[in-house]
Amino acid sequence: MDNFGLYIPTRIIFGQGEMDKLGVESSKYGTKALLVKTVGPLEKMGVYARATKLMEDAGITVFELNDVEANPKLSSVYEGNKICKENNIDIVIAVGGGSAIDCAKAIALAATDDGDVWDFFENKRTAQKALPVGTVSTIASTGAEMSLHCVITNSDTKRKLVTHYDFSYPKFSIIDPELHATVPKYLTACGMADTISHVMESYFVNEKQPLSDRIAEGVVLTVLESESILSDLGNIDMRADLAWAAVMAINGITDAGRGNFLYGAHEIAHGVSAVVDSTHGAALAVLHPAWLSYLCKKDEYPAKFIQFAQRIFGIQKSGKNSVELGLEAIDALKEKYISWGMPGNLRELGVKEEHLEEIAVSTVDNPIGPLKDKEEVLQVLRDCF
Amino acid sequence: MDNFGLYIPTRIIFGQGEMDKLGVESSKYGTKALLVKTVGPLEKMGVYARATKLMEDAGITVFELNDVEANPKLSSVYEGNKICKENNIDIVIAVGGGSAIDCAKAIALAATDDGDVWDFFENKRTAQKALPVGTVSTIASTGAEMSLHCVITNSDTKRKLVTHYDFSYPKFSIIDPELHATVPKYLTACGMADTISHVMESYFVNEKQPLSDRIAEGVVLTVLESESILSDLGNIDMRADLAWAAVMAINGITDAGRGNFLYGAHEIAHGVSAVVDSTHGAALAVLHPAWLSYLCKKDEYPAKFIQFAQRIFGIQKSGKNSVELGLEAIDALKEKYISWGMPGNLRELGVKEEHLEEIAVSTVDNPIGPLKDKEEVLQVLRDCF
Repeated sequence: MDNFGLYIPTRIIFGQGEMDKLGVESSKYGTKALLVKTVGPLEKMGVYARATKLMEDAGITVFELNDVEANPKLSSVYEGNKICKENNIDIVIAVGGGSAIDCAKAIALAATDDGDVWDFFENKRTAQKALPVGTVSTIASTGAEMSLHCVITNSDTKRKLVTHYDFSYPKFSIIDPELHATVPKYLTACGMADTISHVMESYFVNEKQPLSDRIAEGVVLTVLESESILSDLGNIDMRADLAWAAVMAINGITDAGRGNFLYGAHEIAHGVSAVVDSTHGAALAVLHPAWLSYLCKKDEYPAKFIQFAQRIFGIQKSGKNSVELGLEAIDALKEKYISWGMPGNLRELGVKEEHLEEIAVSTVDNPIGPLKDKEEVLQVLRDCF
Repeated sequence: MDNFGLYIPTRIIFGQGEMDKLGVESSKYGTKALLVKTVGPLEKMGVYARATKLMEDAGITVFELNDVEANPKLSSVYEGNKICKENNIDIVIAVGGGSAIDCAKAIALAATDDGDVWDFFENKRTAQKALPVGTVSTIASTGAEMSLHCVITNSDTKRKLVTHYDFSYPKFSIIDPELHATVPKYLTACGMADTISHVMESYFVNEKQPLSDRIAEGVVLTVLESESILSDLGNIDMRADLAWAAVMAINGITDAGRGNFLYGAHEIAHGVSAVVDSTHGAALAVLHPAWLSYLCKKDEYPAKFIQFAQRIFGIQKSGKNSVELGLEAIDALKEKYISWGMPGNLRELGVKEEHLEEIAVSTVDNPIGPLKDKEEVLQVLRDCF
């Protein structure tokens, strides 16, 4: 096991009906909150009105940032920062999925700083602190509710960049599976693919991490064994299982001791999102199997691919080599995704032949993963085009 | 899944050589530290001298509490509290196993309070805060380095009681497997049994917790698959695997969503320690299988015992019922413990026939688990006498 640090100070408040604790929990951090609201159905469903009432009942004055989009934009962060500074906001509250939460994390970094928050994403300066953030998650997907990562897109430069600060962990996150029960089938499946990709991106390193592997496999098996949610969307028990799997997939625990990170599919997905506005999980459902096939064929991690095939899909060795076993398991994963209604190739995501070069350039221009070479990226892209 | 809260704010610093960070990490909390030192070999091995030098080099004045015993005593807590108050100590540093760490946690509660710290253990008063605690673990066993639990023994009243406060989580814990490499075979095996019992005490509840079950099973499998450490004590890789398993066994994650806790073996172990001074893990190696047999025969949790038999020991159903499968798996666990050099019954721990009544009385007098009835306890005790 490689040396590692782990620090996950988010207080998790998990379970049906727990949204009701939003007011009391928020009031521990002050009397003025900025509520970050996304485009989409939550407003109509009354979720934001409920959040506002809960906070107001706890003595909090609620300010609002409206219309935060998927793949949240830097312009929303600037707007939220302005509201924070003009009103001396004490805490930023995100109610939504990863987009609301990442936008809130970025606003929290901006609000305690006098310069341009984009500097932190471009690594021009280092953030020193942040306002506290609280979240109410409404979908099982990115795990942003218990992670330090924060991804923001600059629409002007088409760059999607990430920061990682200890103080970006939300102070608390309420995960109420009842709120997840209205997520439609397609987005539910996107979240499932996103969760699997989070644990499986870094799984294929060659070092021995027996416990982190077991936990990672546990997350994947939990998602696979919950697939009947897709024909039973209101099942709160399975919503809870998926919600917890999404959190455990990216809070640092499944990566403990790995040393090396191989976020190849996420890296290319950032490149894809520079040219088509696809749902993150759907892009990963296409890219992740292609990226794993690329890795598997290089045969650098034979033991892990054998383990993956056996433990996740119960594929027996029977004379097959590690590449054959790995590819058989990757095919099984891809078939799962397709059976869930995920796209099977980049064309279904809206990518055209002439986009591939641009995606490859954008990917290597902004490497958050192991891919530094344009030809490598093109190889993965063509494999799933 | 039941509703749950989870909050584990300890910063983990894990890996070979990481002890060197003790000084810098401690200095974030002040300039005066109390070093909690246990009886045993660490002094002779120079571990305390090294800890002191690291802190002094970081500008910290180090005070010492010496001779803390296994199953740490209230008298040591009083003594440590006195040193803290006389010297305005900023942080309490435990270097050792669960005994040093629990003693440090209790001192940290005492040092910020004007009354008798034992009140908190007897639930007469509620603690409001604590000094920060930092730890350097020297054995994989109790997981005290990332838990809020604190167990102290009052020698006068022969009561061993526990507190659980959020602010009792260590601020940081350094887990350096190099320091674990000198732990002798017997204590290594005790730690392995302790780890398994922590995750398996609450595993046998009937609710469905797919991910928590997978993680719990992952911890147990990691320990079982590391058993060759017992003939290869200096193997740092396996020391690291066991160290991380011990932490993950009791930091709250394997119990997420269980709702119900069944700490039956620990409950009786506290009763046993009131009459014989046994190593905690050795007592659990005897009591835990007996407690599980008792539970299994009641057949209240058939699905879990079938799952345990299949996933941990690969025992196939082949027409057997849940009780038969469960008992077969429990026998396999017991055989493992015995093969590791653990005692196979209470007599080997020094318990005599005439002690059983006293242990049963002491257990139900101080129920930290589900056992409220003396006859129930006697039934478990006789099964492993």
